[in-house]
Amino acid sequence: MSVQGFNPRTGQAFGAATASTTAAEVDAICARAQQAFAAWSGTSRDARAAALEKVADAIDAHAGELAAVADGETALGLPRLNGEIKRTSNQLRLFATVLREGSYVEATLDSADAGIVPPRPELRRMLQPLGPVAVFSASNFPFAFSVAGGDTASALAAGCPVVVKAHSAQPATSHATAQVVARALAEAGAPAGTFDIVYGTAAGSQLVRHPAIKAAGFTGSTTGGRTLFDLAQGRPDPIPFYGELGSINPGVILPGAVAERGAELAQGYAQSLTLGVGQFCTNPGLTFVPTPFVGQLAEAVGRTAGGAMLTARIRDAYTAGTQALAAHARLDAVGNASEDAYGVQPQLFTVDLATFAGDVQKYTEECFGPAGLIVTYEDVDALFALLGHLPGSLTASVQAAASDADNAAKAAAIFRHIAGRVIYNQWPTGVAVAWGMQHGGPWPATTNALHTSVGATSIRRWLAPVTFQGWPDAMLPQELQDANPMKIPRRRDGVLGLG
Amino acid sequence: MSVQGFNPRTGQAFGAATASTTAAEVDAICARAQQAFAAWSGTSRDARAAALEKVADAIDAHAGELAAVADGETALGLPRLNGEIKRTSNQLRLFATVLREGSYVEATLDSADAGIVPPRPELRRMLQPLGPVAVFSASNFPFAFSVAGGDTASALAAGCPVVVKAHSAQPATSHATAQVVARALAEAGAPAGTFDIVYGTAAGSQLVRHPAIKAAGFTGSTTGGRTLFDLAQGRPDPIPFYGELGSINPGVILPGAVAERGAELAQGYAQSLTLGVGQFCTNPGLTFVPTPFVGQLAEAVGRTAGGAMLTARIRDAYTAGTQALAAHARLDAVGNASEDAYGVQPQLFTVDLATFAGDVQKYTEECFGPAGLIVTYEDVDALFALLGHLPGSLTASVQAAASDADNAAKAAAIFRHIAGRVIYNQWPTGVAVAWGMQHGGPWPATTNALHTSVGATSIRRWLAPVTFQGWPDAMLPQELQDANPMKIPRRRDGVLGLG
Repeated sequence: MSVQGFNPRTGQAFGAATASTTAAEVDAICARAQQAFAAWSGTSRDARAAALEKVADAIDAHAGELAAVADGETALGLPRLNGEIKRTSNQLRLFATVLREGSYVEATLDSADAGIVPPRPELRRMLQPLGPVAVFSASNFPFAFSVAGGDTASALAAGCPVVVKAHSAQPATSHATAQVVARALAEAGAPAGTFDIVYGTAAGSQLVRHPAIKAAGFTGSTTGGRTLFDLAQGRPDPIPFYGELGSINPGVILPGAVAERGAELAQGYAQSLTLGVGQFCTNPGLTFVPTPFVGQLAEAVGRTAGGAMLTARIRDAYTAGTQALAAHARLDAVGNASEDAYGVQPQLFTVDLATFAGDVQKYTEECFGPAGLIVTYEDVDALFALLGHLPGSLTASVQAAASDADNAAKAAAIFRHIAGRVIYNQWPTGVAVAWGMQHGGPWPATTNALHTSVGATSIRRWLAPVTFQGWPDAMLPQELQDANPMKIPRRRDGVLGLG
Repeated sequence: MSVQGFNPRTGQAFGAATASTTAAEVDAICARAQQAFAAWSGTSRDARAAALEKVADAIDAHAGELAAVADGETALGLPRLNGEIKRTSNQLRLFATVLREGSYVEATLDSADAGIVPPRPELRRMLQPLGPVAVFSASNFPFAFSVAGGDTASALAAGCPVVVKAHSAQPATSHATAQVVARALAEAGAPAGTFDIVYGTAAGSQLVRHPAIKAAGFTGSTTGGRTLFDLAQGRPDPIPFYGELGSINPGVILPGAVAERGAELAQGYAQSLTLGVGQFCTNPGLTFVPTPFVGQLAEAVGRTAGGAMLTARIRDAYTAGTQALAAHARLDAVGNASEDAYGVQPQLFTVDLATFAGDVQKYTEECFGPAGLIVTYEDVDALFALLGHLPGSLTASVQAAASDADNAAKAAAIFRHIAGRVIYNQWPTGVAVAWGMQHGGPWPATTNALHTSVGATSIRRWLAPVTFQGWPDAMLPQELQDANPMKIPRRRDGVLGLG
């Protein structure tokens, strides 16, 4: 068995086939990861931060060759890929900052109090890494959600060894990135086994069931994610499985916004819908607009251009998805065609609110790619009665003018419970890497709404609390020692501070 | 169908039978909880804190009658039950403190920066409640881990309506407590549907699969917990299921400690083992001691007294468990018998390290009750080679003298990855309710090692993050408004403080 990438522009094989990792090899890799855990988790936060920065620098230093390989396997184009590589290295650097700041360990010191009910002994609590983590790469971000992406960066930062399952459409990009990461980690003194990579679907299934693996991160389809989630939960010892799956990213454009800046909105929407051939998990798949606005939107989408999708399978799913939409909605616009082997055209469909309300589930199946469903409304109250019944999403957006304030607030009150990020007067595509980012949401956006897969707090997914009770100060981790030698933010007898 | 409690002292039925909740009633209760969610989650933190305090006061005010009912159904005795009631009301008060302090929402404000890669819009992130929560009561803490226990207190604090599944052995205690809680919440102005209770196994299964329920907490057996966990994960939309299951709570007594204070240790061990007829999830089920120490331990356990277990089923499981131990280990001591219908005797079993190492799984099956397995060791290094292979536990303890320092540190380094709480020179029974408590651990101690079911941070189980992007300040939740009108700890542009 082997894994083969293809050039989406030509449909031809890209590079040589990569052998699938055998079961024995997966076993050996997991055993090495388990062995590395003690040393890597015991490496100081400072040293782990320095190692992440070395990886970031190495990725930047190899940006040219990495982007070239990825362009051959993804057709995403060099400007986008170079930007994504910078995003990827900066993401590693953010986690270096998080490590040095130190509050992510949630150090908590309680002094003893025998006089309360129940009595309290001296307690010292912090978060610590879970163990080796499996990371399943996404195809639509060959760097930022792949081998050296957010899951890997946050897990390594946490102190967890990482075993990546390469996306089967990108063996060459994955291999090239893994080489850069592994070399940089070795140079930084990380123990052997801290990072490795496997290829092939069977290796992925084995990974998520392997006793040495203590958690898994995944970005991809709802079907693939659900299968792996079920394997992880069905283990004799279930493990956390953080899957980022499907998202339709509803948006509401309110009447005042259309009146105020209709042309700008139409153009912004068409651009967000077709950016990267619509291959973003935050793509605006479902948008509610006042009925008269459809014409402007259709015109704007008609001016957009198609392009090559990442794989033949994704293209075929897009074709099937748009055919399903065409059976139940009106096709109002088609963007320009693409000459590429895996090329597709943007498409805009329209349905009225009453028809949509008659079968919400049918109309909210994600169609990955540059296809948008517009739901036209006449009555804002009828719209609000429906919004709470939408499936979970990564984002939900509102476009409003000052005159829409009441309705915008109502939409936010509903959207905050069906999406992880609620956006005002901006488009959902574009995911910042920051302390305040939330990239997650209720099922089917993710398998676990409590966490984010992007941003500083994504490190929390790989950490579990431990409390030390009654230990002599010198035997405690430095983060918990009385004098706070590392000067990290802590909670002491209930009060946050530097004490 | 109905649920019937029994008096463990006599084996006779206690009180009248309580009707099992029908499927239609469960549906209606869940629908009311869903309806209450908007209002309860929208209730200010201050008002929710006041409501929790009203519940706490009401429980204290009814302590006498509650303890009397519970004593009839559990035979735990009035002193213990009155203490547990105080623990329960104080737990509610702790969450009032947590709510007012406000840092648990993890408010995070990032200002916009268009100059970085990727660019950052203005982001404002906080945690918010998930939705209605199902709470499965435990039998061994009829108050603190039951109707008004930690799961209920933390979920209500989070802003989640709660539907309790009463323990089937304690319908009368559950009903009496639920009345007190419901009345106090109503008086505090909580919306109808914020709290309710159901009876019967079928109602419990329905609850965890109900679309309106967004998370569940459970304390009980590994078998029962696994069944409900599988139901929760098998839903079309899986939900978080926090189960606290089985725990053997390993302990290591080091040679220096025996030499220094052997008699005291023997007595402390026997007391911890038999406290509450051994019906604590933190009971010291497995203890590693230097071979010559067995005699003293056996003598101490021989002086202990048995008592009534909570139910006939728990007594029968204890009998079966001790018979299984007797087949593979030496019975070294038996405590005094109990005259009660569900009475059992403490038992102490011994096996040497090599025999234990030959089948760790067999010897680490939890035997709930006052039975201890002592593993005798000659060589500390052989012991350390084994400790990492123990199953996950809630606690792991070390008894050491100053001369044992190196070995104590080695034990801690291993124990911190197999238990949620690592204890030095104290016994594991007794769980403080505090900011720094960790009551959790790797499978099978819990279904999710990332969280605790006791202490301030147990509220995190019922919260999910949401990020507001680009919203006008006045339309944001107060916690995220620029001026920090509530003066809560927040993170602003990466820095923790009151800004």
